[in-house]
Amino acid sequence: MPSSPPATATERLALARVGRLATVTAAGRPHVVPVCFAIVAGRVYSAVDGKPKSTRALQRLENVAATGRASLLADHYEEDWSRLWWVRVDGTARVLEHGPEFEAALAGLVEKYDQYQDNRPAGPVIALIPERWRSWIPFET
Amino acid sequence: MPSSPPATATERLALARVGRLATVTAAGRPHVVPVCFAIVAGRVYSAVDGKPKSTRALQRLENVAATGRASLLADHYEEDWSRLWWVRVDGTARVLEHGPEFEAALAGLVEKYDQYQDNRPAGPVIALIPERWRSWIPFET
Repeated sequence: MPSSPPATATERLALARVGRLATVTAAGRPHVVPVCFAIVAGRVYSAVDGKPKSTRALQRLENVAATGRASLLADHYEEDWSRLWWVRVDGTARVLEHGPEFEAALAGLVEKYDQYQDNRPAGPVIALIPERWRSWIPFET
Repeated sequence: MPSSPPATATERLALARVGRLATVTAAGRPHVVPVCFAIVAGRVYSAVDGKPKSTRALQRLENVAATGRASLLADHYEEDWSRLWWVRVDGTARVLEHGPEFEAALAGLVEKYDQYQDNRPAGPVIALIPERWRSWIPFET
């Protein structure tokens, strides 16, 4: 059974503007990229949006296709280290190229990011289905 | 042979105040945590500093010991997406618990972060030895 996230962790993750998506290559090596993401119906979605125009941008898609796993981290840094926090979701992952879930993910991304409104991402989309939440949130705002 | 990083990428990485360290578990699953880090003699060092007081904090150490690999990502987010950038270093990694390289790493961390000056991290230290640099830096500041 997936672990239930604390409300604070879910809220912080939902509001974070950038996350870091970690995957593993078919050869077992780590990979990590910054991503914009949206949470729709409890799943975490990010889309290939053409910003990094390179074949390297597809490494994350290959990794998800090969391993079926991903982790997404959102964190906050400031020089007052008593204010640091992070939230991470680990789970299974799939690449979506079309269909109702793909469309709902794009709609969630466009709703969260004004930047996508005139420049809708083409996809594919990576769907992360949370199995485990981990967080470090030592204070309430 | 390791690839040579562009000067801009090295500079941005060196100045970044937080990075995200991606590793892989013995079972092949992704793991990612935010870390403070310093570059000393071309290697990237981060230390366990007791902030996340949990046995979970040691997952990264287990992963490095098991796989010998890590990636570190530094990135910049702002709402003007033409200003986004990121730098990533992929390489081999080792856990250091004592010795000259361990001491030099701690010295580099204390020099970079005032916060460590009265609260020197106990370690262990993770040393990332770069093999490959990747970056997305579409503009000069």
